[in-house]
Amino acid sequence: MPELRKDPVIGRWVIIASERARRPGNFVDRNDSEIEMEERQCSLCADTQNAIATMPQVFSDSADSSLGDVKVVPANPSSVLESVEFIRSKKGLYDVISGFGAHEVVIETPEHITNMTDLSVPQIRLVFETYAARIQALEKNEQYQFAIVYKNYGVTIRDYAIGHSRSYVVATPVRPLRVKEKLIGAKDYYDQKHACIYCDLIQQELASGDRIVHETEHFIAFVPFAARFLFEIKILPKEHHCDYHLGLRGKEADLAQMMKIILEKIQNGLDDPAYSYVIQTAPFRRTGLYSSKWKTIDRDYHWHIELMPQLTRMAGFEKGTGFYICAIPPEDMAEYLRGVE
Amino acid sequence: MPELRKDPVIGRWVIIASERARRPGNFVDRNDSEIEMEERQCSLCADTQNAIATMPQVFSDSADSSLGDVKVVPANPSSVLESVEFIRSKKGLYDVISGFGAHEVVIETPEHITNMTDLSVPQIRLVFETYAARIQALEKNEQYQFAIVYKNYGVTIRDYAIGHSRSYVVATPVRPLRVKEKLIGAKDYYDQKHACIYCDLIQQELASGDRIVHETEHFIAFVPFAARFLFEIKILPKEHHCDYHLGLRGKEADLAQMMKIILEKIQNGLDDPAYSYVIQTAPFRRTGLYSSKWKTIDRDYHWHIELMPQLTRMAGFEKGTGFYICAIPPEDMAEYLRGVE
Repeated sequence: MPELRKDPVIGRWVIIASERARRPGNFVDRNDSEIEMEERQCSLCADTQNAIATMPQVFSDSADSSLGDVKVVPANPSSVLESVEFIRSKKGLYDVISGFGAHEVVIETPEHITNMTDLSVPQIRLVFETYAARIQALEKNEQYQFAIVYKNYGVTIRDYAIGHSRSYVVATPVRPLRVKEKLIGAKDYYDQKHACIYCDLIQQELASGDRIVHETEHFIAFVPFAARFLFEIKILPKEHHCDYHLGLRGKEADLAQMMKIILEKIQNGLDDPAYSYVIQTAPFRRTGLYSSKWKTIDRDYHWHIELMPQLTRMAGFEKGTGFYICAIPPEDMAEYLRGVE
Repeated sequence: MPELRKDPVIGRWVIIASERARRPGNFVDRNDSEIEMEERQCSLCADTQNAIATMPQVFSDSADSSLGDVKVVPANPSSVLESVEFIRSKKGLYDVISGFGAHEVVIETPEHITNMTDLSVPQIRLVFETYAARIQALEKNEQYQFAIVYKNYGVTIRDYAIGHSRSYVVATPVRPLRVKEKLIGAKDYYDQKHACIYCDLIQQELASGDRIVHETEHFIAFVPFAARFLFEIKILPKEHHCDYHLGLRGKEADLAQMMKIILEKIQNGLDDPAYSYVIQTAPFRRTGLYSSKWKTIDRDYHWHIELMPQLTRMAGFEKGTGFYICAIPPEDMAEYLRGVE
């Protein structure tokens, strides 16, 4: 069974997946081109619609977890992890939790479309509504403290091989390090200024305009002032809300339009690069035990999307220090993307 | 001029490099294969020894910065940044520092050898002694708070293209986020237990032995309990010292031997993968202004090396959350590497 392990110095949790198929010897013998051959038969495709039909739906009430053409299935069909009880233990200096939580695949379309850019705006809308429905459902499991949505397009050779446009929802009993840092940073700002730092950032970005890539009625997309990656983009709702699944209401069509435009700019302007996105939403369980620590989270945190084209590899310097080198000024990147149709 | 910019929420500093040659249009037009062609003429090679001779030495006293065959030159020959004064300013919510510090290339050999594994143990020893000499020299500049050593082998297409075995020393006026997290984690542990967490980790790892890859008189190499990356390895000196350049004394030959053995295991066991390493050492300026905050750093922090083979790409989930998925149990990785000659 997979487990969560905590780094004893910095407190970062890592999922140790322990797949039998990827034990060291196997891993090394099995090279990228072999994976490519094996996966070319797309297991998520409409041609193999049968496979999807026989995979266990995450919920018995499938109307709840799947909207229209969008399907949600467990990432690993052999183990539905919803029912696992998390047991925390100590091994000397080390903390371990058995199991890690839910890992679901959102299959965005029954057709073999590889890039979300090629979905229609209504279909993209359904995908983002599905994320919201899944987060809302996962929140009901008292064991989870946190959920996140992510997507990879062409990032690994495996992504290219499977191809089929899909994204993932993860829910866990712990809060990841970077999320904690954001929550603490936003809370510190609120404690000092009695304002949401993201709301203030939106004001500053709109006033200067230098880093704005696109603006819709409800959202702004901009290159962050301290961008880590080339053409990194943050998408923020103008209206304050800490939860994605609640804050999205009434803005679904507008967000789908924004995503379509931004993904097209990336595809056309940067020669169809690999990319990832992550939806950052406030953690669950903010009452009771955690109420004093997170009592202002409704006011201090602001859900958002981080979009990261993959144009360069992260090297040792970045991994070892968390100190990034960005080769182009963010203002130049934004100006370039504004000009791309 | 490059500048340092701070993320306003989590406080992470990013170097914005602003090379003219990599403005957006240029970047996109210039693809990897073109870079490869252009760089194949190795600019660091003995064939072009002349180029090195005409590059400004970081110090006029070249005996101080270069040991034996090892040469140290600025990463960007057109700008020796030692003399830049760092000016800190505010742009609304954003913090900026003009310039970023020193960035030096350690050219490990005059011959065109691509992988450090192929250097002799005495030559590897000279490289690690050179790092120590450079850190000691950079510490004298009152503006720097921190130095780090890193190496990339084959990580980017550019690394492959240049080929020549080299590493880097960076010194900056700020402390990177991950380094701060380590310093704080180590201090918290010391405040509670009056012991160095790394010394205690060494005891626990030696007692269990499950994650040990190799042990020498003065060092242990092990796969971390909560490894982030496949076959990630930490190399720690058994004797406590917070500073690399001081703690290394008397252990130079032993460390060179350890590095040679570990790099050979990686090369032979994992099919010559790309890899990076980083040397983590305590920050400078621990007296005066910072004395109360870091007064126990000599006792609570422990220098070490992080070695990261690059077998998989980091995807959006990891980048957005700082939450890593490791596909193989660390104990299995260590067992596999122990068996590789």
